[in-house]
Amino acid sequence: MDRILYEGKSKIIYEGEDENSYIIRFKDTATAFNGVKKEEIPEKGRLNAEISNLLYEYLEENGIKTHLIKVIDETTILVRKAEIVMVEVIIRNLAAGSFSKKYGVPEGTPLANTVVEFSLKSDELGDPMINDSQITALKIATAEELKEMSEQAKKINELLSGLFLKAGIILVDFKLEFGRAGKEIILCDEISPDSCRFWDANTKEKLDKDRFRRDLGNVTEGYKEVLRRLKDVIGV
Amino acid sequence: MDRILYEGKSKIIYEGEDENSYIIRFKDTATAFNGVKKEEIPEKGRLNAEISNLLYEYLEENGIKTHLIKVIDETTILVRKAEIVMVEVIIRNLAAGSFSKKYGVPEGTPLANTVVEFSLKSDELGDPMINDSQITALKIATAEELKEMSEQAKKINELLSGLFLKAGIILVDFKLEFGRAGKEIILCDEISPDSCRFWDANTKEKLDKDRFRRDLGNVTEGYKEVLRRLKDVIGV
Ligand SMILES: Nc1ncnc2c1ncn2[C@@H]1O[C@H](COP(=O)(O)OP(=O)(O)O)[C@@H](O)[C@H]1O
Ligand SMILES: Nc1ncnc2c1ncn2[C@@H]1O[C@H](COP(=O)(O)OP(=O)(O)O)[C@@H](O)[C@H]1O
Ligand SMILES: [Mg+2]
Ligand SMILES: [Mg+2]
Repeated sequence: MDRILYEGKSKIIYEGEDENSYIIRFKDTATAFNGVKKEEIPEKGRLNAEISNLLYEYLEENGIKTHLIKVIDETTILVRKAEIVMVEVIIRNLAAGSFSKKYGVPEGTPLANTVVEFSLKSDELGDPMINDSQITALKIATAEELKEMSEQAKKINELLSGLFLKAGIILVDFKLEFGRAGKEIILCDEISPDSCRFWDANTKEKLDKDRFRRDLGNVTEGYKEVLRRLKDVIGV
Repeated sequence: MDRILYEGKSKIIYEGEDENSYIIRFKDTATAFNGVKKEEIPEKGRLNAEISNLLYEYLEENGIKTHLIKVIDETTILVRKAEIVMVEVIIRNLAAGSFSKKYGVPEGTPLANTVVEFSLKSDELGDPMINDSQITALKIATAEELKEMSEQAKKINELLSGLFLKAGIILVDFKLEFGRAGKEIILCDEISPDSCRFWDANTKEKLDKDRFRRDLGNVTEGYKEVLRRLKDVIGV
């Protein structure tokens, strides 16, 4: 592999095939609470890569522009290089996690509409929530970019919520990252059990990173179950 | 005075003249950091009442609907009873306070646009910031109410920023509360050095509650200076 450009909490970025691409390798490392909790989860890199790749291919087929160029191997992909918009886009279908805690709403509470949140991508500041007028006031993104990301995120939510429901999984909430590439805003980073809350539709069992965050055990098994069911409904 | 209905951190609410009104009395008590810091500030009640009343009369003259019916005495007003919308509306013209801390932006930094923030009115939850989609998802207010409050708040900002600038004061940021009264959304609560950041336009000296929060001393003198200059420009 080429030169490491950046080693993140769960992935490594390498030089790509040319100046418009990067190679991303998914690691087995899991972190939570802004890096305070950290562990190796066997097979996580491979599972997240495969889940994310299947989802990005499905999204591409349904009109979403993503960074994925091609799959290199089990844990490695070639992606379009982008200038990441420094906000995480969070979509919520049910109350859970930080939302439940912050607003005193029990986990699993239905929401009258899909929630779209932004948080500033800053480990130093603890990824604080930030609203549209604050983002434009600090010139982190333009109003047009926010609208575009918001619309893309809601469309992605429709597509993935439907897909996972067929797999007997509720897509409770998830986090996206977008980047500027040429004149476009494209979906970057990953969509995996690290960045989504997945609950079994019948038992409400958690199949995602909350198994790690909350010490529920069997983290790898949860991720494997998500991949198994996803392959089933996608038919690969 | 009649029966106390509610004693808040800085005001007391009494029964009004009929079932559509309340009497509000401004206290000398100051609190900060969600009530952790608490002190009596001599004359604060009288000063805040007079400042707030002058501003509400000025806003009414300029087309803003407020709860103020009449001034009863130095510290007491008669107001229209409203069902308070459970979000505080915060307007920011310059970075300061919690915004500066949260987003790592030095106090006094200019903003590319006026910031409009909402925070959930909940002492228990620590008044967390909340965005539009979260507010409607939790049925705290409707999208129409948010738009109305936002527009009113920006109009109030235009009016008051201009007025204070004539008084040699920069209106850095401020907090508003709105309430439902009949079919209208009206401006409630107060606008005073307790709820605004006021900086001397030349020296940048703080003339507001930050004197109390940050133990800068001479709190009453700051409030008195705001009232003196305000009377000057309003011509009373
Ligand atoms: N297509 C892309 N172009 C540029 N940067 C990307 C792209 N996709 C993801 N990234 C960035 O690469 C990094 C991925 O590694 P990760 O371990 O998730 O890092 P972090 O610890 O910052 O979350 C992130 O900083 C992410 O924003
Ligand atoms: N016109 C009004 N109708 C009903 N409630 C009001 C009106 N104006 C202000 N209030 C409420 O009255 C209380 C004012 O007292 P205050 O000491 O500021 O209370 P708090 O400690 O809750 O901030 C606040 O809860 C405020 O929301
Ligand atoms: Mg990451
Ligand atoms: Mg109050």
